[in-house]
Amino acid sequence: MKVLVNDVLVERSEVKVDIEDRGYQFGDGVYEVIRVYDGTPFAMEEHLERFYRSAKEIEIELSLTMEELKGKLEELFAAGPFHDGGIYVQLSRGVAPRKHQYEEGIKPQLIAYPVPSKRPEKEQQEGVSAITADDLRWLRCDIKSLNLLYNIMIKQRAYTSGAFEGILIRDGYVTEGTSSNIFMIKDRTIYSHPASNLILNGITRMKLAALFAENGWTFKEQAFTKEELLQADEVFMSSTTAEVVPIIRIDQQPVGDGTPGELTKAVLQAFLQSLKEERVPSV
Amino acid sequence: MKVLVNDVLVERSEVKVDIEDRGYQFGDGVYEVIRVYDGTPFAMEEHLERFYRSAKEIEIELSLTMEELKGKLEELFAAGPFHDGGIYVQLSRGVAPRKHQYEEGIKPQLIAYPVPSKRPEKEQQEGVSAITADDLRWLRCDIKSLNLLYNIMIKQRAYTSGAFEGILIRDGYVTEGTSSNIFMIKDRTIYSHPASNLILNGITRMKLAALFAENGWTFKEQAFTKEELLQADEVFMSSTTAEVVPIIRIDQQPVGDGTPGELTKAVLQAFLQSLKEERVPSV
Repeated sequence: MKVLVNDVLVERSEVKVDIEDRGYQFGDGVYEVIRVYDGTPFAMEEHLERFYRSAKEIEIELSLTMEELKGKLEELFAAGPFHDGGIYVQLSRGVAPRKHQYEEGIKPQLIAYPVPSKRPEKEQQEGVSAITADDLRWLRCDIKSLNLLYNIMIKQRAYTSGAFEGILIRDGYVTEGTSSNIFMIKDRTIYSHPASNLILNGITRMKLAALFAENGWTFKEQAFTKEELLQADEVFMSSTTAEVVPIIRIDQQPVGDGTPGELTKAVLQAFLQSLKEERVPSV
Repeated sequence: MKVLVNDVLVERSEVKVDIEDRGYQFGDGVYEVIRVYDGTPFAMEEHLERFYRSAKEIEIELSLTMEELKGKLEELFAAGPFHDGGIYVQLSRGVAPRKHQYEEGIKPQLIAYPVPSKRPEKEQQEGVSAITADDLRWLRCDIKSLNLLYNIMIKQRAYTSGAFEGILIRDGYVTEGTSSNIFMIKDRTIYSHPASNLILNGITRMKLAALFAENGWTFKEQAFTKEELLQADEVFMSSTTAEVVPIIRIDQQPVGDGTPGELTKAVLQAFLQSLKEERVPSV
């Protein structure tokens, strides 16, 4: 397997990071996961735009332009074999003797490589359970940074309790999942937390918002409470990797009748259909 | 230079981290910086206790006992040369294919190596300036984790504006500095934010609290507002690396008369004296 390291492809076994890479010591960097369907990247422009935005927010300047990076990622795809999954792209500020501040001229470090994953078909059909947890993260969740410790702590709590996702609650309101956006449906209106500093505005979330409009489904970007979540008719999550997955149990209580709801199923079908229309192979 | 990698000493140039070390991709780990005076570590037990506590809070179990790690760090010192500075110790959860959750049996990765630093004598004598910034960090600042992105963003803002430290303000109250604890003095009473989830309880802070008691100086672990900070008679910061440093300007306004205050100077002298009494060489 090849890994893109800055602007060259390197064998996976030969890629190594320095202990004083600021990504390792401070989480000083940003990332993206771009979905790949049968060798073809999906929504690559949107992901790269968000990647460059995240980098800009923490004042890291890439040495490659977006067009150049796209070309390099295409070389990575061409080096294949590359089937279903995603491409992980990470940028750190660079390598320097450890201290909090950094000097001008530090050279950012970029890596990109394939991460296999499969559509969670069983979960999409049958739905999953979730837990809730306080959202203790920082107040710049709009930056897709490497500071993911709290996300992984709650994902792990979900995982070890047999749940698929952890839903985060800040000041009584649902923000998002540990690696997904959360939607609830009440009286046929779809709700999701507004894009703000409190959530990462998912690419799939944005694709879904467009689909809601196309299909005439009422969508309100409006925060809702944990109590409203637990009283919802339907709940689902969205993410690049999982696409759309119904949540049918939260904190061991059924959502609605405890099966995937009709509107959620329609949203999933509309999303899969939209992938076909964007001519993603094998979908 | 040698680096302790898990339980063996390795040449610095040969130490490399895998791209899928969770420290690199999630900031999934913890660290300490232990001060070393002329080859002798200071307050090593306290730092190691906090290190093991931080690891426990995020559910990483070290393969070495505290006593074994202490022995390994002593081997590292013995490998010298090792003069003034600190020893940086970092633990990450380990290496695994990238996904948020982790599996049992993942092997934690430990590194430790010397980081040179000198007592900031000029700053201790003359005082420094600081800026204030909103504290947007997560709500588990009591864990000394690798998720330091916000700390470094504000430290960099201070650095590029010619200031020595950034003082963080949450909900109107001073929490701590980006890599220090903050103290203010009003009417000869010393105030500092209580040890809670909102600050890291510094080893130097704890040493100082004991010195305040010994010297009969009134110390209140009580949060104070940004306004109170700006109206303080004296302000100082403490950290392992900087020890005690007077802050004489905040957001370009003088603190008190704009010179290091008398009680602050007495605190610094008492701290340096206590180092002598703990028989740190060359102090």
